[in-house]
Amino acid sequence: MSLMTSWVTSANSDQTPFPLNNLPYGVFSRGDEWPHCGVAIGDMILDVTALEQAGMLYLPEDEVFETAAWNEFMDLGADTWAAFRKALTDMLAMGSDKQKAVEGYLVAQADVQMQMPFDVVEYTDFYAGKHHATNVGTMFRGAENALPPNWLHIPIGYNGRASSVVVSGTDIHRPWGQLKGPNDDLPRFGPSARFDIELEMGAIVGTASDGPITVAQADANIFGYVLLNDWSARDIQAWEYQPLGPFQGKATATTISPWIVTKAALEPFRCDTPAREFELLPHLRDVGPMLYDIDLSVEITPEGGTTSTIARTNYSEMYYSAAQQLAHHTTSGCPMRTGDLLGSGTISGPDKSQYGSLLEMSWGGKEPLTLETGETRSFIEDGDTLALQGAAKGDGYIIGFGGCVGTLLPALETPFKT
Amino acid sequence: MSLMTSWVTSANSDQTPFPLNNLPYGVFSRGDEWPHCGVAIGDMILDVTALEQAGMLYLPEDEVFETAAWNEFMDLGADTWAAFRKALTDMLAMGSDKQKAVEGYLVAQADVQMQMPFDVVEYTDFYAGKHHATNVGTMFRGAENALPPNWLHIPIGYNGRASSVVVSGTDIHRPWGQLKGPNDDLPRFGPSARFDIELEMGAIVGTASDGPITVAQADANIFGYVLLNDWSARDIQAWEYQPLGPFQGKATATTISPWIVTKAALEPFRCDTPAREFELLPHLRDVGPMLYDIDLSVEITPEGGTTSTIARTNYSEMYYSAAQQLAHHTTSGCPMRTGDLLGSGTISGPDKSQYGSLLEMSWGGKEPLTLETGETRSFIEDGDTLALQGAAKGDGYIIGFGGCVGTLLPALETPFKT
Repeated sequence: MSLMTSWVTSANSDQTPFPLNNLPYGVFSRGDEWPHCGVAIGDMILDVTALEQAGMLYLPEDEVFETAAWNEFMDLGADTWAAFRKALTDMLAMGSDKQKAVEGYLVAQADVQMQMPFDVVEYTDFYAGKHHATNVGTMFRGAENALPPNWLHIPIGYNGRASSVVVSGTDIHRPWGQLKGPNDDLPRFGPSARFDIELEMGAIVGTASDGPITVAQADANIFGYVLLNDWSARDIQAWEYQPLGPFQGKATATTISPWIVTKAALEPFRCDTPAREFELLPHLRDVGPMLYDIDLSVEITPEGGTTSTIARTNYSEMYYSAAQQLAHHTTSGCPMRTGDLLGSGTISGPDKSQYGSLLEMSWGGKEPLTLETGETRSFIEDGDTLALQGAAKGDGYIIGFGGCVGTLLPALETPFKT
Repeated sequence: MSLMTSWVTSANSDQTPFPLNNLPYGVFSRGDEWPHCGVAIGDMILDVTALEQAGMLYLPEDEVFETAAWNEFMDLGADTWAAFRKALTDMLAMGSDKQKAVEGYLVAQADVQMQMPFDVVEYTDFYAGKHHATNVGTMFRGAENALPPNWLHIPIGYNGRASSVVVSGTDIHRPWGQLKGPNDDLPRFGPSARFDIELEMGAIVGTASDGPITVAQADANIFGYVLLNDWSARDIQAWEYQPLGPFQGKATATTISPWIVTKAALEPFRCDTPAREFELLPHLRDVGPMLYDIDLSVEITPEGGTTSTIARTNYSEMYYSAAQQLAHHTTSGCPMRTGDLLGSGTISGPDKSQYGSLLEMSWGGKEPLTLETGETRSFIEDGDTLALQGAAKGDGYIIGFGGCVGTLLPALETPFKT
């Protein structure tokens, strides 16, 4: 596939993240207006809520885009996803006879604020990157016991907090929590001193399921993908996580990029999962290429400072695909719903320059990394802005996600509101 | 406090779970009708959706009870909770001048099916019963390491699956899952052979919060309580739970009782948490009696058989109150929302007859328990019906919850739908 051209001229570039090939779905607002659903095209947004209100969309139901979230659209099912994408492509393609009717519904991205693109119904975070799991396991349990015994047989994960998922651009306060250092007799309550990021992709469940589903069905049920930063307080996590897993260490915030990149847009970039040490049990086996070749990077910008790119990796480094994670998630009969968000787990490559968390980059704080400015970092400092970037690179075009950005604000002076 | 009398004569008994002192909130349906919200009184239900439609309720907003869930009511805040309870008490009290106007809105409990009383927004399950944690820890890690180091300092918990919460009376299929016995070389996929219950209370968050809250605020934000059975596949859990905690082993279903018993109804039964081995950090300390004296029991009925009561315990056996759990849940800044459900953790007393799970009663399957019929059980068998019962016992009246009941159906022959 090559670049598809549009009468929205800013979309006809090998640099824009949003060519006609992409057509990602978001929610935007202007000032105090009720947010609208929109589709990114070049540096513009096609306002689909306004198009629907004008009777210019032909969907199986009315008022799909009134709620300022893509959940109702997702709930219409895969046939509607395909038909709508085709209709949008027809509207926006170079030479479209719809140009005159539609061009009044374009809004400049520069003039809007992006909102959460969908209501996160529940959020699950996996731990399915082998390099990351090996690195973290080596730090915590030694090289011999790095991977837990179950790791090569199931994509292990834990349930996170949907209420804490925020859209790119939301500032995050350094959290307070219960902390206990290895040499402390007793725990204390204080601000986290080891606040970190995790570079992940998020998969969004579009079609609900009730009971176990196959990997093929799981792949069909996924609607699209976002970038995801699973902010992590390593010191809170270390004290709390045994035996029930991460809880408050992961509950301050999880940031997602503002545009849902559809599975359809990513289709040309499918690739295989890596070779496996143990054959997976039949219900978890790959049924085709289900990862995606998406370049990913992590940028850090100290307050008022210069941006340093501190990691470059690729989604294809994952051991398990989102489809395998979703299939595993249903094995017990667990119902999955439209708007469920599945975090991939931290995506690290084999090389130190490819690690997806500061925990790994600074090897638990023992080897601080040096930024472009000469400053060093073991973990995030107050005022730092962290940005994840992602792009699938095609022949003369890219499929971008928009950034996944957040600035760490200092801890509240007194955490409890009175 | 003693029994308050009502013109609904079935409510004037020291045996009914639903005297005028209680007034719990549920959702009921008749045949294919849209479900209504209702209040239990004796063996009847006052149909508050119909009362609202008739203009006979005076709430700050319209159509509060149109959604067949109590979430919108909870969202109106504690002043409205108190005013509405007072209005209901006035309507239903013996001698009320509203009797004639209201009596047409009574429905017999025998004629309805109970539905989920509220939309579970997210679900968190704690592990805050010390006898239970000690028992399980002793079985898994030996008596010296029974309690994890954090246990006496924070109410540890994990996020569960809201989508899997069902109302009493819902049948449960024995789940499939990935299993690996201690002597197996490799895991296999099969039906759970160690399916269990956990006797818990569920606390429902009525008032949302954004940022850390104190224990006093947390107590104020709780709307009410239900009985909760956290069905648990011990063999799935054993293989999956390290290091990220329970996941599919707890995702088949969690059953709650159909009536939300309000904090107001339980007020006379408040009691203190037990003496503590370590003083809690200030943000988690008790600020008054925050547990409740509620008698709890577990009944098992084999298919077509006789019911055996296999455990009797009390909610006051908990080490941490729901208010302390909710306060801890917010320490990281985690937003909590109206409709969040917090499971207490298994409520076991010190004696073997007081254990809240079959895992403990049969000591990991090594000491099967004997039922009234002479049958034995290590874990649940297909066709068994498990029922939790709960009642706070006052002076001539009880505050009941309705049962929390589920029958275990056999595993699906082939788990995946084709």
